[in-house]
Amino acid sequence: MTNDVHDVTPVALSTYRERLRRAAAAAADRGVDALLITPSPDYAYLLGYRAPAMERLTCLVVPAEGEPTLVVPRLEEPLARHGLGELTDALEIVAWDETDDPVRIVQRVVGSVLRVAVQDQMWARFALRLNAALDPAQLVEAGHTMAALRSVKSPEEIDRLRAAARAADEAMLAITAEPLGGRTELEVSRRIGEHLLAAGHDTAEFSIVASGPNAASPHHHAGERVISEGDAIVLDIGGTRDGYCSDTSRTAFVGEPPAEFAALFAVLREAQRAACEAVRPGIPAADVDAVARDLITDAGYGGAFIHRTGHGIGMETHEEPYIVASNTEPLVEGHAFSIEPGIYIDGQWGARIEDIVVCTADGGERLNTSSTELYIVE
Amino acid sequence: MTNDVHDVTPVALSTYRERLRRAAAAAADRGVDALLITPSPDYAYLLGYRAPAMERLTCLVVPAEGEPTLVVPRLEEPLARHGLGELTDALEIVAWDETDDPVRIVQRVVGSVLRVAVQDQMWARFALRLNAALDPAQLVEAGHTMAALRSVKSPEEIDRLRAAARAADEAMLAITAEPLGGRTELEVSRRIGEHLLAAGHDTAEFSIVASGPNAASPHHHAGERVISEGDAIVLDIGGTRDGYCSDTSRTAFVGEPPAEFAALFAVLREAQRAACEAVRPGIPAADVDAVARDLITDAGYGGAFIHRTGHGIGMETHEEPYIVASNTEPLVEGHAFSIEPGIYIDGQWGARIEDIVVCTADGGERLNTSSTELYIVE
Repeated sequence: MTNDVHDVTPVALSTYRERLRRAAAAAADRGVDALLITPSPDYAYLLGYRAPAMERLTCLVVPAEGEPTLVVPRLEEPLARHGLGELTDALEIVAWDETDDPVRIVQRVVGSVLRVAVQDQMWARFALRLNAALDPAQLVEAGHTMAALRSVKSPEEIDRLRAAARAADEAMLAITAEPLGGRTELEVSRRIGEHLLAAGHDTAEFSIVASGPNAASPHHHAGERVISEGDAIVLDIGGTRDGYCSDTSRTAFVGEPPAEFAALFAVLREAQRAACEAVRPGIPAADVDAVARDLITDAGYGGAFIHRTGHGIGMETHEEPYIVASNTEPLVEGHAFSIEPGIYIDGQWGARIEDIVVCTADGGERLNTSSTELYIVE
Repeated sequence: MTNDVHDVTPVALSTYRERLRRAAAAAADRGVDALLITPSPDYAYLLGYRAPAMERLTCLVVPAEGEPTLVVPRLEEPLARHGLGELTDALEIVAWDETDDPVRIVQRVVGSVLRVAVQDQMWARFALRLNAALDPAQLVEAGHTMAALRSVKSPEEIDRLRAAARAADEAMLAITAEPLGGRTELEVSRRIGEHLLAAGHDTAEFSIVASGPNAASPHHHAGERVISEGDAIVLDIGGTRDGYCSDTSRTAFVGEPPAEFAALFAVLREAQRAACEAVRPGIPAADVDAVARDLITDAGYGGAFIHRTGHGIGMETHEEPYIVASNTEPLVEGHAFSIEPGIYIDGQWGARIEDIVVCTADGGERLNTSSTELYIVE
């Protein structure tokens, strides 16, 4: 029932056949007999079209060996066939009627197995019903299996991330060229939505505008506060383009910043630059986090950097790999993620700088190219 | 990270306190020791603000006895406190840091119990981790408990559904007053999005425009097909207003319909009318489905009515009660749902009529008031 008219631009059919094959192989490697993938970015990644998550179960069954099966409500079948196109030949489609029990149908398709992995965002109601129906098979998370595939981006995917990043840069430069003082956060947020679309996004997903003391809340929702002289403003914006996400943050200041804020910002900018520089294949994600965190801590702001340094990005705004102290996995070529340290002083102000960075053989490549300086606005 | 700036208009604080109390009581009635509610419509229903479902776990714990606890990522805490307002006094807030394991924190809050119910749309990754952490407690679905509360609408909720329905009627009348021939489905769909917003919706959620043979696919996505003379067009549109959903379908025809289509449509219109008339407290949902289905079957179109007659509506477009053959539960005063039979002839055409109906002591009250006739368009 969603109005998801802009599907991912078609890529070669062979890409999806290959992804299905690799998913099956990755499942086999982990001792998983079948992956159960409900509508989600994983589903779109494997099948090339988006289906809505809803109370009627749609479930792609990818066995470690053999042909995949798509279990789909009868009235979603035409949409599925349209979305799949020629990929229909690569799988079997089983449509269920309104009074059928789709969980039993998935059970029949899966057969008698030991371990089944369910898509991370599958609704709990389905996971619990499948758990009961597939007993004594063990239900495990499909997240790691799918992340192993999806976190390593192909050159074509990186091109899409680059195009999305470029569009976000354009929107960021447009909004920071406007006078912001005297407008509410909400007005500016809506204006950013227009800029995101005008710059070539298909959807405007978020536009955090956190001004003055609100800038100390990393995920503040834009509200009725009127932006004023002397405010720091954290702008964190993004959308989607051709199925891939953008996400960039810059900090602006209304008028001349006091020395105290300029000093804080200089520390942040250096930490963000150093973390980007540290990116290379083989370095643990935790070490990239530490580069930014140590510089900020050494300057006395350690307690004010209250979130991880970054998150992977692709078909989702937040996906693996996470750039966080607890992730000791090494980065590999093709990983794409944000580097976004922030410093937040409760009740006073805050700042954040965020770029999307790709790990290449030669080190980190920033996909965002707008200046990371403090944007002085009227 | 969503841009969910339009929260539900504040209602009395006592409403949310009362809902939390009733949820705890409903859990106790079902032998459930605690409800675990992640961001979802259930969460917004209980707490009065929307939080994004994301990889960082936010979880409201409602014990059958005692005070609720909200487990929230540290950097979402300001947003949570802002969203909760004075309701903060009715619960405990436990914030977790980036390197904490939030599942362990929920486990500590829940304590040693026998049965825990998880929100229907909770991500499977969290459900599986909670299942392991809470062992040997049994994990069950919270869906029925929450539906028992949410499916019975208060007069205030019905007012919101009525306002949303009125806005959808206005958009439907606006689009059917325009010439549609020569335009693509996608153009018309986007235009409907504008009409939905102009008529007072906060968001335009969907606008199915299924023309000619596409009208035979109930959930067709509007595409590049050009609408032409002799096409039937199924228009199925909706949005949200003050946190409540609209959803209405009408059928249009470009030019004069042939007798064959007019006959089909007359059967459909009578079936839809009769099903609306059948609504009263105490009648099983299945019987309302049967009223529409029997009339359509008797007229020879039984195989062409390939979906249930309707679905509940409220804060979600699809929720309980479902008007389907397998639901033998009686309707009660305050239930709100769609009545939307359809007839779909593969490769040729289709038609659907959908109203939102509330079950009152006096029978069914249609919230949609636009004519259910066939709309003849240019």
